[in-house]
Amino acid sequence: MQDALTQLNSIVGEVVDLHRAASLLEWDEQVYMPQGGAPVHGEMVATIRKTAHEKLTSDEVGRLVERLEPTLPQLDRDSDEHRTIAVTARDYHKAKQVPAEFVAEQAQAVSAAQHAWIEARSRSDYAHFRPHLEKLIDLKRRYVGFFPPKAHPYDTLLDEFEPGITTADIHALFAVIRPRQVALIREIAERPQVDDSFLHVPYPEQELWQFGEEVISAFGFDWSRGRQDKSVHPFATGIGPDDVRITTRVVENEPFSLFFGTAHETGHALYEQGINRAFGRTLLADAASLGVHESQSRLWENLVGRSLPFWECFFPTLQGMFPSQLGGVTLEQFYRGINKVQRSLVRVESDEATYNLHIMLRVEMEIAMLTGSADAKDLPELWNARMQEYLGLVPDNDAKGILQDIHWSIGAIGYFATYTLGNVISAQIWEQIQRDNPDRDDRIRRGDFSALLAWLRTHVHRFGRKYEPQELVQQVTGSRIDPEPYLRYLEGKYRNVYGIES
Amino acid sequence: MQDALTQLNSIVGEVVDLHRAASLLEWDEQVYMPQGGAPVHGEMVATIRKTAHEKLTSDEVGRLVERLEPTLPQLDRDSDEHRTIAVTARDYHKAKQVPAEFVAEQAQAVSAAQHAWIEARSRSDYAHFRPHLEKLIDLKRRYVGFFPPKAHPYDTLLDEFEPGITTADIHALFAVIRPRQVALIREIAERPQVDDSFLHVPYPEQELWQFGEEVISAFGFDWSRGRQDKSVHPFATGIGPDDVRITTRVVENEPFSLFFGTAHETGHALYEQGINRAFGRTLLADAASLGVHESQSRLWENLVGRSLPFWECFFPTLQGMFPSQLGGVTLEQFYRGINKVQRSLVRVESDEATYNLHIMLRVEMEIAMLTGSADAKDLPELWNARMQEYLGLVPDNDAKGILQDIHWSIGAIGYFATYTLGNVISAQIWEQIQRDNPDRDDRIRRGDFSALLAWLRTHVHRFGRKYEPQELVQQVTGSRIDPEPYLRYLEGKYRNVYGIES
Repeated sequence: MQDALTQLNSIVGEVVDLHRAASLLEWDEQVYMPQGGAPVHGEMVATIRKTAHEKLTSDEVGRLVERLEPTLPQLDRDSDEHRTIAVTARDYHKAKQVPAEFVAEQAQAVSAAQHAWIEARSRSDYAHFRPHLEKLIDLKRRYVGFFPPKAHPYDTLLDEFEPGITTADIHALFAVIRPRQVALIREIAERPQVDDSFLHVPYPEQELWQFGEEVISAFGFDWSRGRQDKSVHPFATGIGPDDVRITTRVVENEPFSLFFGTAHETGHALYEQGINRAFGRTLLADAASLGVHESQSRLWENLVGRSLPFWECFFPTLQGMFPSQLGGVTLEQFYRGINKVQRSLVRVESDEATYNLHIMLRVEMEIAMLTGSADAKDLPELWNARMQEYLGLVPDNDAKGILQDIHWSIGAIGYFATYTLGNVISAQIWEQIQRDNPDRDDRIRRGDFSALLAWLRTHVHRFGRKYEPQELVQQVTGSRIDPEPYLRYLEGKYRNVYGIES
Repeated sequence: MQDALTQLNSIVGEVVDLHRAASLLEWDEQVYMPQGGAPVHGEMVATIRKTAHEKLTSDEVGRLVERLEPTLPQLDRDSDEHRTIAVTARDYHKAKQVPAEFVAEQAQAVSAAQHAWIEARSRSDYAHFRPHLEKLIDLKRRYVGFFPPKAHPYDTLLDEFEPGITTADIHALFAVIRPRQVALIREIAERPQVDDSFLHVPYPEQELWQFGEEVISAFGFDWSRGRQDKSVHPFATGIGPDDVRITTRVVENEPFSLFFGTAHETGHALYEQGINRAFGRTLLADAASLGVHESQSRLWENLVGRSLPFWECFFPTLQGMFPSQLGGVTLEQFYRGINKVQRSLVRVESDEATYNLHIMLRVEMEIAMLTGSADAKDLPELWNARMQEYLGLVPDNDAKGILQDIHWSIGAIGYFATYTLGNVISAQIWEQIQRDNPDRDDRIRRGDFSALLAWLRTHVHRFGRKYEPQELVQQVTGSRIDPEPYLRYLEGKYRNVYGIES
């Protein structure tokens, strides 16, 4: 058996190498590729992903999985060995369901859709994107058809990004969150608005960049195993735990987007850097899910980076760096400024209090598209009606409405819910950290993040993909995924920021 | 037949994609990789190269090559079709000779040797590198043994880098070049030395960088299909013609190393950017050889970039940018300064007049190692004796002697001769350009490089790997590879710089 596992790991190691290489090429595409390189990059990545799929679904892997799966009952369920076999078998069986021609057809459709989306968004022309979206929806329906039926067809799509989470789970979560977030936003709207004008004056980019670097060095970002660059959209990429790269961006009139982008992506990066290196080139050397990943980015961006204890430590430094912009601003004013709630049309510009409403709208639309309860031609109207309902706003044009996100154009349908899961899980973890470390906030006030990072390493990061999200959250917090801690956090914080009596 | 070729090209296209991806990862390793990423990069590149080898030597490629090779006599020898089949068959048969286990064993040996070499060079400890070098020599002997015997065992190694060129060709070339270069250096040594002190004062890096960018933009470097970064050793990488990247470096006390590095690598890049895009992802979409590649870098670095007509155009700009460093320097003084001849221990710092002597020494040592006429333990002594003989200098330590170059540590034995071939071919091409464009130098004086680049595109670049080096040189210049133009150029230029009557 040990021999078979060694053989399996050796082939899977090549699959992992190939996916890591593809990730690095995709990083390069966003960060340093000259514009003319797009087609050759597309070809390289397609060949690498296709080759990885061929290797994973090879007869040899099939034979080894068949030999190893029956040994699972004899292995300690908690051992790395058991989990490596189980995760490899899961990925093998899933990949085997999907014909190679389908993979190729989808890759081509995505490539075409992405170009069409860029064009459509730039001229706010939904009709230009619509046939591509229809094609992608059709592909997703066929994809669902490759697998045994589940309680809901959308379950199969969710499973791509969040193993073990069902549509029913998401609906239940939204049912709790929606009314309370809507009520909170209404309460906030009745209060005088926060003044954040000092955040919208010019700040020299280089100093802000340097401030971000100082902060994430304090967080524990390991520069010998990572780097930061600029890109149009901030993102994090892990090429294994020893090469983890983040990006941030410069947004006109939103100078602090640079800093919060850095903090957010650092949360992702700390997770990747913390995955057990003994997992080597196995499939365990990855994140548990996108939701768990997002819990880490939200934790460092929001629960740490937009908290009062954090700025008690860092505001004096920031003020010293930018005396003309912040000299007359108090810590309290600054804290309220960076936590200003403002209903907005665009998800990536939205604040903590409204963010999940943007997500719900998208998830509901995805389900409607997949089940056919909404026709592609009616989607912009549906989008605008929901925006009005949830946020009381209607976009002037589709570029600021249904065309704003890249996700659908790259075939990522079933992805959005992971953002809300990330928010929810981050608050559950945050409360648990407080229980285990009563001096959590005092340490943050002193700029000491070592205990926090050590806790996350021990309880979350190192496990990589060993546990599924529900299992991990249960193990870390003693309960399943639960929205209450998140709602408590949100209501507590924003009633305080807006002076609302609870 | 057309079907078979389409099928073959489709598999070979994936081989090309994989090699391009590996090249980009290697670029990243030198330019942006965080230090901790070295092992994971090693794994990724090894898997990609191995996978490419597997695809190229697959049974399917074998069957297709077998079907297509017999059709060659019926095809126009000059057609892309003929050449694509011939080059693919050549690479397939070569790769098939080498067992996969040997490829893996060599990859491991190279990885170990490279680490040992870095260590050995840093403490100038040849003994630390010696067992690795012995292992690599042993591997090269075994490699030679996989192929039918040639006139000289070194022929098989040369063929890796310079198809069709033999050890006898190289010996014949050196026999002509050696005495005349030695005599020239002797004549120069008798003349008063040139003053280049103004090149060794501080120049602000950013302005020099900008000057380099202006120059290579004028050369015709296409920034939409390329970029420039910094690295420890300058190099150029082509990820296909639409993504070609160069690097340069900053050397203390040698500020112009930055500029000449840029000019040199741009020569390589213009070649890569000029390869016929219709070659797509076939094996023709590559350079003819390293020697032909080097002819392009030398041409732009030396024949253009160290020429008087070039500086007649650009010296006023440079002087305007650096008035305090160059305000009191005349064009003539500057030209002589950048062409100063100085015997030195280190190849990469050596000038045009002495460069080939460094190469000869290395090639002779490689042949001695391969044939066993020198033992690894005696190599440093042999190195130092030859340095004394050719350049009248002996290194203080092995770091500045036998350990100075990376080539052997990466298993590149048989590579060095291509530098001299590049010098020789560059001058042959240069004379031909003059014959075809009598106003060649006048245009350079005006900063107009369009006709020069167009000529190179038409006569050299676009053919990619379609022709072997001898065939290409014959076609371009009407004669085979011939050292006379190069010696004429060298003697003419340096007698002029040093005021020697000929």
